[in-house]
Amino acid sequence: MKAEHQIACRKILLVEDDPRDVELTLAALAEHHLANEVTVAPDGAAALDYLFQRGQHLGRAGGHPVAVLLDLKMPRVGGLEVLRVVKADAALKTIPIIMLTSSREEPDLRQCYALGVNAYVVKPVDFLEFMHAIKGLGIFWLAINEPPPVVAWSLDGSVGARETGAAS
Amino acid sequence: MKAEHQIACRKILLVEDDPRDVELTLAALAEHHLANEVTVAPDGAAALDYLFQRGQHLGRAGGHPVAVLLDLKMPRVGGLEVLRVVKADAALKTIPIIMLTSSREEPDLRQCYALGVNAYVVKPVDFLEFMHAIKGLGIFWLAINEPPPVVAWSLDGSVGARETGAAS
Repeated sequence: MKAEHQIACRKILLVEDDPRDVELTLAALAEHHLANEVTVAPDGAAALDYLFQRGQHLGRAGGHPVAVLLDLKMPRVGGLEVLRVVKADAALKTIPIIMLTSSREEPDLRQCYALGVNAYVVKPVDFLEFMHAIKGLGIFWLAINEPPPVVAWSLDGSVGARETGAAS
Repeated sequence: MKAEHQIACRKILLVEDDPRDVELTLAALAEHHLANEVTVAPDGAAALDYLFQRGQHLGRAGGHPVAVLLDLKMPRVGGLEVLRVVKADAALKTIPIIMLTSSREEPDLRQCYALGVNAYVVKPVDFLEFMHAIKGLGIFWLAINEPPPVVAWSLDGSVGARETGAAS
């Protein structure tokens, strides 16, 4: 089945400084067989290095993740700054960015949407609700959403547009 | 439970010219108790009238939907033009727009992401897969995603930011 194949090819970037949230998120994704490769960046600076393929990620293989799960409050460089930089970059702006944060404060919501975030998820405090939210998030962004062609990721690590048929 | 309450308050705009797809989408949302109010616009012109509260929607009650499900190929005004106009409007640009189309052609994908679409879903041809996709889409956008404060919709039809706690 096509959907199964697509899930198998998809990778995401998780930008999160809280080890417990990292563990829970990875567990929820794994439980539902969502994403075969998750890269974890512990702060915004590491996330930008990864996305721009510089620093410790200089020359890393492959292209971009089909989705970035981005925490808001982090040391060094925060989520708002990552969002601002990515959405202002012509080559990276189409990568879907989903805020995954404990803040439901209105200024945070407003700023993220104004900067062009694709979606905004408030982390549930309750364990089961957290797992449920990650499941729903993962199903939509990894199995239902069609990512931009430039971020397609093939199994051999090469980057390129998928075969989507001739243009009309 | 908070999530239950939020689902009950949320409305969406479905922009779709195919009566069969409208019927299936409404059935899938209803089956999973997602969205208590769905407004259907049969083409892009009607959708813009609704969002800008003009024409037949002049003076309509309430604010904006928490999500717009937008078909691509429609008579009069197509989905790309709706997307372009909404994402260029300072007041409407934060409304989440999800393309829901039968096209997986690369130029369509590229253009939609370049214009700032929040997500892009290719309608599955298979009936059960279609229902499954709408379920996943509905769960994420109506129960998990936190919409921009300005589009919050309360049960009495009034518009306003929800109580999200004091700003930091």
